[in-house]
Amino acid sequence: MEINYPNGKRFFNQDTQYGNRGMTLEEDINSSNEYYLAVGTAVIHKKPTPVQVVNVDFPKRSAAVIKEAYFQKPSTTDYNGVYRGKYIDFEAKETKQKSSFPLKNFHDHQVEHIRKVLKQGGICFVLLRFSTLGKVYFLEAGHLLHYWDEQHGDGRKSIRITEIQENGHLIPSGYRPRIDYLKIVDTMYFD
Amino acid sequence: MEINYPNGKRFFNQDTQYGNRGMTLEEDINSSNEYYLAVGTAVIHKKPTPVQVVNVDFPKRSAAVIKEAYFQKPSTTDYNGVYRGKYIDFEAKETKQKSSFPLKNFHDHQVEHIRKVLKQGGICFVLLRFSTLGKVYFLEAGHLLHYWDEQHGDGRKSIRITEIQENGHLIPSGYRPRIDYLKIVDTMYFD
Repeated sequence: MEINYPNGKRFFNQDTQYGNRGMTLEEDINSSNEYYLAVGTAVIHKKPTPVQVVNVDFPKRSAAVIKEAYFQKPSTTDYNGVYRGKYIDFEAKETKQKSSFPLKNFHDHQVEHIRKVLKQGGICFVLLRFSTLGKVYFLEAGHLLHYWDEQHGDGRKSIRITEIQENGHLIPSGYRPRIDYLKIVDTMYFD
Repeated sequence: MEINYPNGKRFFNQDTQYGNRGMTLEEDINSSNEYYLAVGTAVIHKKPTPVQVVNVDFPKRSAAVIKEAYFQKPSTTDYNGVYRGKYIDFEAKETKQKSSFPLKNFHDHQVEHIRKVLKQGGICFVLLRFSTLGKVYFLEAGHLLHYWDEQHGDGRKSIRITEIQENGHLIPSGYRPRIDYLKIVDTMYFD
């Protein structure tokens, strides 16, 4: 979870698992979404980080100041929007591991949200970055649910990279957009 | 803009124009969305209020505490999600006026967002409550853009209620859901 200071500095929420590397993925996706928006390809945004506000000052003649608040875990995925008339919904996560992707990167609420979106006929997937390998994979949400349901509660709690390679799609990294995930969406849902 | 305290109390952002009445509309819509979600009709959520975080404490062995932050104006509409495979996007506003709906309730960014969503083929509309009259209208975003473009910059800056009645749809208030706006979506986009 990354927050931008007004002065351009950043800080990182302590419970973010992979530190700076996670930020890079988020930045790459935000930049890709800005590109899609600018050229009219799609309207996809990251949802604001939910914050539980506890105490606010209302100074006279100036803006309200939040004096005490806490970061909350999102109850849905981070990204959604519209592309070619269809609802798009996804989550993006990364790991430093090289041979498998830990499922603990996903919260229960997010997985339940994904399940409901699929039932409504939305296009739903995850973007998984292996930061050490420098690779980003597109994996349809149905596959994530398969591994989640199979493994949740016991045993191995990760997806092997070979499984991701078999069932998912490597996204070539580019310049504009940096992560062209909609190209994969085209081939899978529209062609 | 409404924020829930952890203890159930509420406070209101000072630049919210219509005070308590706006809260009621938001509560009604959130409750309707919870109903839709619970019975499997649709997956539609209110986006979290964007907050600009300036200063955070990271106490040892406990959660990060935001010590200084500010409410930001949303750059998109407040509500979006998926219904019958289609992308749904809307904004909800209310007024105490009886004969017209002031356009200043909408921000430029929201209107530009609405324009882009329509270009992508999303289903986009506004819910307008006349709180004094106790009536909620469904107005397709195309009509809002029509009045916005016609009036923005000069002259009358509102939509007459007669125009809303002619081009929009009165939503009967109910118990579950309280504001059954998807029934209007059914008749307009699916039947």
